[in-house]
Amino acid sequence: MTQQPLHGVLSPVLTPMTDQLNPDIPKWIAFCKQLLQDGCTGLAPFGTTSEGNSLGVEERIDMLEQLVAAGVPAHRLMPGVGTCSIADTAKLAGHAARLDCGGVLMLPPFYYKGVSDEGVFRATAEVIERVGDSRLRVYLYHIPPIAVVGFSLANIERLIAAYPNTVIGIKDSSGDWNNLQAILENFPGFGTFTGSEKFLLSTLRLGGVGTISAMANVIPARIRYLYEHWTDENADQVQEVLNLYRESTREYAPIPALKQIMASRTGDASWLNLRPPLINLSADKAQQLLANFNG
Amino acid sequence: MTQQPLHGVLSPVLTPMTDQLNPDIPKWIAFCKQLLQDGCTGLAPFGTTSEGNSLGVEERIDMLEQLVAAGVPAHRLMPGVGTCSIADTAKLAGHAARLDCGGVLMLPPFYYKGVSDEGVFRATAEVIERVGDSRLRVYLYHIPPIAVVGFSLANIERLIAAYPNTVIGIKDSSGDWNNLQAILENFPGFGTFTGSEKFLLSTLRLGGVGTISAMANVIPARIRYLYEHWTDENADQVQEVLNLYRESTREYAPIPALKQIMASRTGDASWLNLRPPLINLSADKAQQLLANFNG
Repeated sequence: MTQQPLHGVLSPVLTPMTDQLNPDIPKWIAFCKQLLQDGCTGLAPFGTTSEGNSLGVEERIDMLEQLVAAGVPAHRLMPGVGTCSIADTAKLAGHAARLDCGGVLMLPPFYYKGVSDEGVFRATAEVIERVGDSRLRVYLYHIPPIAVVGFSLANIERLIAAYPNTVIGIKDSSGDWNNLQAILENFPGFGTFTGSEKFLLSTLRLGGVGTISAMANVIPARIRYLYEHWTDENADQVQEVLNLYRESTREYAPIPALKQIMASRTGDASWLNLRPPLINLSADKAQQLLANFNG
Repeated sequence: MTQQPLHGVLSPVLTPMTDQLNPDIPKWIAFCKQLLQDGCTGLAPFGTTSEGNSLGVEERIDMLEQLVAAGVPAHRLMPGVGTCSIADTAKLAGHAARLDCGGVLMLPPFYYKGVSDEGVFRATAEVIERVGDSRLRVYLYHIPPIAVVGFSLANIERLIAAYPNTVIGIKDSSGDWNNLQAILENFPGFGTFTGSEKFLLSTLRLGGVGTISAMANVIPARIRYLYEHWTDENADQVQEVLNLYRESTREYAPIPALKQIMASRTGDASWLNLRPPLINLSADKAQQLLANFNG
């Protein structure tokens, strides 16, 4: 396997929207730059937290193009490129590879349910073959609570064996430590990110490379601190403090909650704009959340 | 509500693929024309059976454009336009409306799970507003076994009330007769299609307008016969005979099974091409299926 170009704390960047529910690209680019200043080592735009699959194919291409043109280094980017169609996924992944992005975060096709490992393997392989670009670096995106379809351990092994220079890592958002542990133990040297910063310390201790965490939108410096100090004696305590922030938001729908925090922090109510089917927290819930998070 | 432009037996047209797994457009157009000759009253390309969500946005636009240019009447078409993104869904729906298609079949955004009725309502409304074309006629696509997200009875009612000239029907592929019955009883005059021809007679008896059925790819004339003769005395027996065909394929993954039947019937092995994540039946299963179906 090749050297990991991406590691540390990546934010699946929230997407600010205009009142017309289109991506507010200038505000988004400024936020991306801010996150890199505030502690993120990289960015994963168009992730689940980014409402990435609520964006159109052309919107994602246009946004990524503008982000790189604005000076954000492509090697620090891992854009989400997964769709239900190998045609659209190859289009997005090929575009990201040509921009020389550090990697791409790739969902399996997730429309059909109950599909076989063989089918998921072939879909991933077909996208890689269609892109046909040695600059492509794939991070598998395993998030069965939302996509339902995922990458089994057997499929991860098969994909690494078939494409050792291309399939170089994974984001495990199963929420299941046993699955994450099995990935870490079975695939040493693979670029394994935990989808939740609550497993960051345990992930690093087993050789993982970092976290791609929704919370990195709002507390990047705190997560980065743990990443830089995970061998310190008090690392467990640092992890525990980090967990309190997650705990304070746990009861609320995560993307609306994070946008609420951004609106409150910046005084800019347009941060509340969400693309349906997501909707904002009720006024009551929003007030509770902010009290918990800031408390 | 406006007069139903579409009714009867619609086929969610199988998509023939080349060996490179791209849509074989000439073969597809010929198959569409054949289905209309063989008994379909209309066509629903890009449905679940069509591997519609395995096709890219631009592929769907190009295919529909070519289909209409080849002389298939747009008013007999109900293309699938649902994606996870209101931007892409509006793009596809707007294109179909401008071609004056009889309707569009619209999934709710299906990436995020556990979303609210309010969120699904807003997503549907936003697409309709973005299209902003009085030619748009929406059939809601309720298929929770695959999309997981669906349209509740309350949301159907709300969408009809908000857009009485646009939201004119539904395809219920819940597989749940109780749900279909509730739709038929609660929304008389709404264009309700059953997603399975096994409920065709019961649907017509309660005022529904027809079926959009995978089996209409392979037995269109038999299904059409029931549609034309549902008030005959022996209609229940006709329905029972129809059910035997479905029963003969029931144990097999439906899309691979139908492509197997087409390959066998035409002697053209390229009908077996499927886009992953779907894969073909094993040789054993294929043989069993064909014996059952032809038996």
